Amino acid sequence: MRTDGRRVDELRAISVRRQFTDTPAGSVLWTQGKTVVLCTVSMAAEVPPWFDEKRAGGWVTAEYVMLPGSTPQRKPWPKIGHTDSRGTEIQRLIGRSLRAAIDLGRIGPHTLAVDCQVLQADGGTRTACISAAYVAMRDAVKKLPATMPMPRVIGKSTSDASTGKILPRYDSALYRPTEAMENQLAAISVGLVDGEVLLDLDYADDSRAEVDMNIAYTAAGKFVEIQASAEDGIGIDQARLDEMLAMATKGCRAVMEHQRRALGE
Amino acid sequence: MRTDGRRVDELRAISVRRQFTDTPAGSVLWTQGKTVVLCTVSMAAEVPPWFDEKRAGGWVTAEYVMLPGSTPQRKPWPKIGHTDSRGTEIQRLIGRSLRAAIDLGRIGPHTLAVDCQVLQADGGTRTACISAAYVAMRDAVKKLPATMPMPRVIGKSTSDASTGKILPRYDSALYRPTEAMENQLAAISVGLVDGEVLLDLDYADDSRAEVDMNIAYTAAGKFVEIQASAEDGIGIDQARLDEMLAMATKGCRAVMEHQRRALGE
Amino acid sequence: MRTDGRRVDELRAISVRRQFTDTPAGSVLWTQGKTVVLCTVSMAAEVPPWFDEKRAGGWVTAEYVMLPGSTPQRKPWPKIGHTDSRGTEIQRLIGRSLRAAIDLGRIGPHTLAVDCQVLQADGGTRTACISAAYVAMRDAVKKLPATMPMPRVIGKSTSDASTGKILPRYDSALYRPTEAMENQLAAISVGLVDGEVLLDLDYADDSRAEVDMNIAYTAAGKFVEIQASAEDGIGIDQARLDEMLAMATKGCRAVMEHQRRALGE
Amino acid sequence: MRTDGRRVDELRAISVRRQFTDTPAGSVLWTQGKTVVLCTVSMAAEVPPWFDEKRAGGWVTAEYVMLPGSTPQRKPWPKIGHTDSRGTEIQRLIGRSLRAAIDLGRIGPHTLAVDCQVLQADGGTRTACISAAYVAMRDAVKKLPATMPMPRVIGKSTSDASTGKILPRYDSALYRPTEAMENQLAAISVGLVDGEVLLDLDYADDSRAEVDMNIAYTAAGKFVEIQASAEDGIGIDQARLDEMLAMATKGCRAVMEHQRRALGE
Amino acid sequence: MRTDGRRVDELRAISVRRQFTDTPAGSVLWTQGKTVVLCTVSMAAEVPPWFDEKRAGGWVTAEYVMLPGSTPQRKPWPKIGHTDSRGTEIQRLIGRSLRAAIDLGRIGPHTLAVDCQVLQADGGTRTACISAAYVAMRDAVKKLPATMPMPRVIGKSTSDASTGKILPRYDSALYRPTEAMENQLAAISVGLVDGEVLLDLDYADDSRAEVDMNIAYTAAGKFVEIQASAEDGIGIDQARLDEMLAMATKGCRAVMEHQRRALGE
Amino acid sequence: MRTDGRRVDELRAISVRRQFTDTPAGSVLWTQGKTVVLCTVSMAAEVPPWFDEKRAGGWVTAEYVMLPGSTPQRKPWPKIGHTDSRGTEIQRLIGRSLRAAIDLGRIGPHTLAVDCQVLQADGGTRTACISAAYVAMRDAVKKLPATMPMPRVIGKSTSDASTGKILPRYDSALYRPTEAMENQLAAISVGLVDGEVLLDLDYADDSRAEVDMNIAYTAAGKFVEIQASAEDGIGIDQARLDEMLAMATKGCRAVMEHQRRALGE
Repeated sequence: MRTDGRRVDELRAISVRRQFTDTPAGSVLWTQGKTVVLCTVSMAAEVPPWFDEKRAGGWVTAEYVMLPGSTPQRKPWPKIGHTDSRGTEIQRLIGRSLRAAIDLGRIGPHTLAVDCQVLQADGGTRTACISAAYVAMRDAVKKLPATMPMPRVIGKSTSDASTGKILPRYDSALYRPTEAMENQLAAISVGLVDGEVLLDLDYADDSRAEVDMNIAYTAAGKFVEIQASAEDGIGIDQARLDEMLAMATKGCRAVMEHQRRALGE
Repeated sequence: MRTDGRRVDELRAISVRRQFTDTPAGSVLWTQGKTVVLCTVSMAAEVPPWFDEKRAGGWVTAEYVMLPGSTPQRKPWPKIGHTDSRGTEIQRLIGRSLRAAIDLGRIGPHTLAVDCQVLQADGGTRTACISAAYVAMRDAVKKLPATMPMPRVIGKSTSDASTGKILPRYDSALYRPTEAMENQLAAISVGLVDGEVLLDLDYADDSRAEVDMNIAYTAAGKFVEIQASAEDGIGIDQARLDEMLAMATKGCRAVMEHQRRALGE
Repeated sequence: MRTDGRRVDELRAISVRRQFTDTPAGSVLWTQGKTVVLCTVSMAAEVPPWFDEKRAGGWVTAEYVMLPGSTPQRKPWPKIGHTDSRGTEIQRLIGRSLRAAIDLGRIGPHTLAVDCQVLQADGGTRTACISAAYVAMRDAVKKLPATMPMPRVIGKSTSDASTGKILPRYDSALYRPTEAMENQLAAISVGLVDGEVLLDLDYADDSRAEVDMNIAYTAAGKFVEIQASAEDGIGIDQARLDEMLAMATKGCRAVMEHQRRALGE
Repeated sequence: MRTDGRRVDELRAISVRRQFTDTPAGSVLWTQGKTVVLCTVSMAAEVPPWFDEKRAGGWVTAEYVMLPGSTPQRKPWPKIGHTDSRGTEIQRLIGRSLRAAIDLGRIGPHTLAVDCQVLQADGGTRTACISAAYVAMRDAVKKLPATMPMPRVIGKSTSDASTGKILPRYDSALYRPTEAMENQLAAISVGLVDGEVLLDLDYADDSRAEVDMNIAYTAAGKFVEIQASAEDGIGIDQARLDEMLAMATKGCRAVMEHQRRALGE
Repeated sequence: MRTDGRRVDELRAISVRRQFTDTPAGSVLWTQGKTVVLCTVSMAAEVPPWFDEKRAGGWVTAEYVMLPGSTPQRKPWPKIGHTDSRGTEIQRLIGRSLRAAIDLGRIGPHTLAVDCQVLQADGGTRTACISAAYVAMRDAVKKLPATMPMPRVIGKSTSDASTGKILPRYDSALYRPTEAMENQLAAISVGLVDGEVLLDLDYADDSRAEVDMNIAYTAAGKFVEIQASAEDGIGIDQARLDEMLAMATKGCRAVMEHQRRALGE
Repeated sequence: MRTDGRRVDELRAISVRRQFTDTPAGSVLWTQGKTVVLCTVSMAAEVPPWFDEKRAGGWVTAEYVMLPGSTPQRKPWPKIGHTDSRGTEIQRLIGRSLRAAIDLGRIGPHTLAVDCQVLQADGGTRTACISAAYVAMRDAVKKLPATMPMPRVIGKSTSDASTGKILPRYDSALYRPTEAMENQLAAISVGLVDGEVLLDLDYADDSRAEVDMNIAYTAAGKFVEIQASAEDGIGIDQARLDEMLAMATKGCRAVMEHQRRALGE
């Protein structure tokens, strides 16, 4: 039995509130046990400056911040920038996972900026953000314009040439935003605690875990991100790894049920 | 008639949700029309490094950030730090207002850190934050310990001496945290739009306003902050100013009704 | 009687030295008691990147720094940037006040950059900067070219589109730089000290003040900025506020005399 | 056949030069194909400020930078800080892996600072750094003092209390630095390129890879870090994952041969 | 004949105004032709954190900034920090020169912070700052207390140990602040322009100079800093170097006359 | 006799390894006693944004960093940026020296970015970098294209106009990259230690030196940089200066032998 009475393979209670705010194209408040995250998706008819003429389609960026009040002892903002090194690692993981869940060619020259804010942190925030962001992106792509816009390029980096810039070519025949998100994506954590594999670690579980693993997984049964870390001096053998992967994929399928229910599917 | 059909002296709909999250001592989700802010209050048994032996009691800090998805066009995080110059000005105003609403001697050597996050911005975010933070602070002071803790000093600045530091003296007879917040505080904006004084400006009002004023006001009928700015080339005479102040105080009293209802008073 | 023997409504001695340096278009060394500020005005035939085709005319920016030697205990430069959060709040106030004193349409596509440096700080630096900058701007606009230049856009922000940028249109018929500064502007502080309203607070007054107010006011009798802050736990009622405003406007009119004398009017 | 003629499961040529420089306790120049990294290990009799009285033993930190000349198109230093977000993610992975390869209790109150510099980048830099750092750490722990030093605490963070700091207790009976590194560690990348699993990706392989995986693995047959990322829209099923893991563990064992030879074992 | 009619070995007009402001211990406004600098000296009874028990006496720091209005085209503040890389190089040169002009043992555990602000830049700002700062330091040391204070250590760096810090020992028998500045110091620039050696370059000279040299020199006939730079592709032979050094020392002696006159000697 | 047994005018052992890495156009590992530096030269067909239509030819930039493991006590990376104020001063000196050794008109619109990394620091790193970079630049210019490329402008600064930019004109008749480096350049340090002039100071020498001088000198017998600094309270007279310059030029000629041998001349 776990601290909160859950079975080893039991998810925490999940609630999904779509369009929590109205301003962004997608806005999901995701609660998983005591973990609460807000994921918003903002759209712009722009692509990054490093896109070149071979690159058709759009882009997805992700940022992750923990609000100062999200932890029992207040977490101050970093001195420089708005996220610390742990947050940087997490937002790169989130971004890669989400780009695997979207057909970038289908959304034309748009950038979807996914902003993940942790309102309350009790373990599993990165996976909650991925699961929540999938739902918010589904809402967002429905709001993309029916016809492909004139592309713009954002944020010219300083190493850009001021002359001879070749703009990306876009193929409007590919542009079908509503079909861009057919690859359902969810994420969950699993861990090895006192020699036992546990699903959906809360903070109490996580701080005791010998091995901690996060996976992002699709409804088509494909892993898109696996990130496993053993604690100091401890590792994991193949058998345990298989056990953890099996529980994680099962957990992701359970999370997908919550996503589909929230999306009314 | 205003864009949204309100009368000139009509507040937008206000809803107040206390303990929106559980981690901080106080956590209020405040909705005022389409403006949504989350104010959390974190406590620590610490005082700032510049407190000296003459300074008894605690301190209140405030930070204000707009989340990237809070505006129709995504607002990127600043390159350096987590808030821009406008946010810096606002958080100083919020901090001063809140310190006027608390008897710092009553809370002993504690720091209450108020974090204001704008989840959706439609005008009046700074005043919404003040009104919300008052409620969140009320919840927070109830959680202060019954007896005064051993004081600690936070964040020694680099100009501090490493020797001879004289710690603040604290008078435990003064320590009565539940009596610290008897000075009810609310804030509202008023503006001069097309020659007419309007209460509680939304973004549409604000962008047309010739003069924009924010006040923080107490139930005892005292102004604690007044901030009025005329647009380029336009000013305000004494008569108009009086009219704006009168409407603002009336508005603050109406906001206080919402605060009291939320607090069950 | 005040520490320095002044009456409650008496300004400190003011001296105004125009063209203190030759390089910038305007350069005023303003001494008010022991407070000394240097305000320079630099001109460029540029407008900000966020100007669009609806925006004709120019712009005014303001920066405020305290030099390290301006205070009895040396004030170190901030670690990041060149001004701290108090300076940020002040420079925003200065900028808004100055833009109210100029007809931006008259100066064409120019930016006037006002730099306020505090050489010695003894209270009232922000209001001294506003009063000084008005004089410096008067000198500066006389040096604008007789005919309107080809506009340029400065500092393209990273979110700018690289294509399709619509340049602001400028109406050369409006261009009359020498008529741009007819709205005389001065500023002063007032405060409530030991229950008495005092004009033009020095540091000794200011550190004892229960309420501190800064106003920027025009010769036409209009307030363009009002900023009042009560100390912790103390507020101000309407009657006292009226008294403070009355003394402040009287003080501004007295400052305007010094400005006009300096300008030879 | 691969671009450089290797078999799918063939490592690039590896050369290991110990004590490349004399100043640090460990210094390894590791060449793997055209990838060249320099890993140094500096020691200090200090522990991090967040160590508390329950935490006995030492710590390992890791930093990763790419030198500007390491890439065909020069990679400029970041504007702020010395490593970018990718580097931040990598150095966290390296640090976790290395802490799994050392018995922190055995090294007493020391911090080993591992600095990984990429002199030339042709894919696989993060895994080369882990493999190299293991060898450098082996050299470093031999230079730890025979008896445990008086502990010091480094870098007090600003949120630290100035009073009541409880120093970590250290158990000198545990102190056996030469026995601290018995857990041999190596790392390698594998990838799925054109549907084929390849070992030890160079840049040409990596830029075509559908899935990219890095593992850190011990001689005892335990995974300590797994990090797999699928490219946009592509994932990996369980069968392919098993195939990749199998090739990666085989690759790590081959790398360990190079480590042992370099260490003269 | 030079642009401004001076002979090749003629100084620009120099005026020296002591105690330009009252707050700092020393404050000199130095005008040399059109170059105007303000040097202030602030004192604190502190020494740097890296002082150890072998280091008796005090320290001198120097900072150099150009105010934005000091150049014809406004010089913006740097994005990060308050001085750019040129300013960093210059302030290091100034600091070294000034430390050569003071007997640090004589001033006890004090730090003199010299702040050099360029109000108007027309060449030769770094040497003007050194000459001005010497005068300001002379005024400052007279204000040091008659008896040596209890030493303090400033700005503990993060790598400092929190335990076992050995404070510097100070020898009060050495403490004779009024005798600390007997080593008169001045500085000047010389340059090679169109094959001719010129003294005290203004901006017009400097921008045409093939070689540019700054020296700091004492009344005892000793060089304390020499910094010579040839322009691209051009160097200087021994004969020309000797000629430049001779003119520079003659120039420094002439500057010393101005210093002595200002000091009333 | 010196600590390491050298005569007063004896260089440390020098070894020069060209093309230490393959990626950059030039890459030299330079060992001088225990000092080890790696200088790489990266090329780009770009010129700086401040080049105007009067400026034909290319540019050379230099950066200098000390790797954390280069010193006995680890040198942490700076909090902001990648080099500290000492490094900033040094890289400006290196850049100026190298631009004196190249005919910028001959290399057309290219920028050579010289990156100097100190792998091990035992005194004389700045002069070792200059000597090494000369060799690396010789290798680099041989790789410039045979015909002059279309120029590009890098890093448009924010003050650039977005319209009316006049691109530099380039004269392809001047373009002869292999003839650009005929001005052989070397650098060395000399110092006054215990009243004796010593060549090529190591750290032990340097920490005892009363005067420390670095010179960059060409095979044509011209000084291109001289930088001499006296320690606190000590200066140098003309006679000693001549002695130091004489030894330094002799030392530079000896370093040039090593350069020529490495270049196979």
